[in-house]
Amino acid sequence: MIDLTSLHSHSLFGGITERQIEEIRTFFNEEVFNKGDFIEQEGERGDRIFFITEGEVEIIKKLKFGRGYRQLLVLDEGETFGEMELIDVQPCAASVRALKNVRTLTLTNRGLYGISKLNCKIFSILIMNLARDISRRLRKEDEMLAEIQSGKYTEELEQ
Amino acid sequence: MIDLTSLHSHSLFGGITERQIEEIRTFFNEEVFNKGDFIEQEGERGDRIFFITEGEVEIIKKLKFGRGYRQLLVLDEGETFGEMELIDVQPCAASVRALKNVRTLTLTNRGLYGISKLNCKIFSILIMNLARDISRRLRKEDEMLAEIQSGKYTEELEQ
Repeated sequence: MIDLTSLHSHSLFGGITERQIEEIRTFFNEEVFNKGDFIEQEGERGDRIFFITEGEVEIIKKLKFGRGYRQLLVLDEGETFGEMELIDVQPCAASVRALKNVRTLTLTNRGLYGISKLNCKIFSILIMNLARDISRRLRKEDEMLAEIQSGKYTEELEQ
Repeated sequence: MIDLTSLHSHSLFGGITERQIEEIRTFFNEEVFNKGDFIEQEGERGDRIFFITEGEVEIIKKLKFGRGYRQLLVLDEGETFGEMELIDVQPCAASVRALKNVRTLTLTNRGLYGISKLNCKIFSILIMNLARDISRRLRKEDEMLAEIQSGKYTEELEQ
């Protein structure tokens, strides 16, 4: 369980001082989910980020062929999901399911707008942190794609 | 060739007024490259974004097995590359080569910092636009990975 006074040690709040975090704290809501709950559903509109303060979730994607899901990622305390949906206001690219009882701090698009009006500096650091998180994920996927495509599947994929 | 007075119609400058663009214009440099030039080299440190005002480039990645490159993407006038490196200050994930003679507007990390000091609002819109671009690319790659992994290669990849 994450101590709310130590938020600045996590990447979402990196570069934001404790005092600044207190300033924007009211824009975040606390939400709780039970083990097994779907927190986000693939294809539905997402408009908020979730910062996990307790528990664990899995990011899953429906199989295109056949039934069931494929697990893409497991996220833990201190990690964030929903960045792309918050920034891009698009349908969720994947579903998120609680693997344990989960507690989150949630920031909606409207909340983010509120922060931008309150303090542009904090807002821009937050956006920068979100962009960095997304960028890190893209870098990982670039690598995965390059490996898959330059490995033994190259020929098949090029057809 | 892009008319510099119409920059606000491109995603990098979306939401930024013409007057605001003029305000930050001096932070951008103009760079030119000849057809065939490597503008960025995979593995080298990148610290700037390039907004293409003329010409065309290809994003290429060294093959992991065997020699040569694989073309990942072709980018055109009005498009941007280097976002991840600017935001994340990491080695370039891929190389960029000019397919024609190319002219770019370039913004370095130092320039971005300058804009943040000059006008926080413009700065935060710029970062938001960069984040959106990265987010869109991640969404595409998510789809590609899901397709590859849930298709006929599922079994092999799961081993």
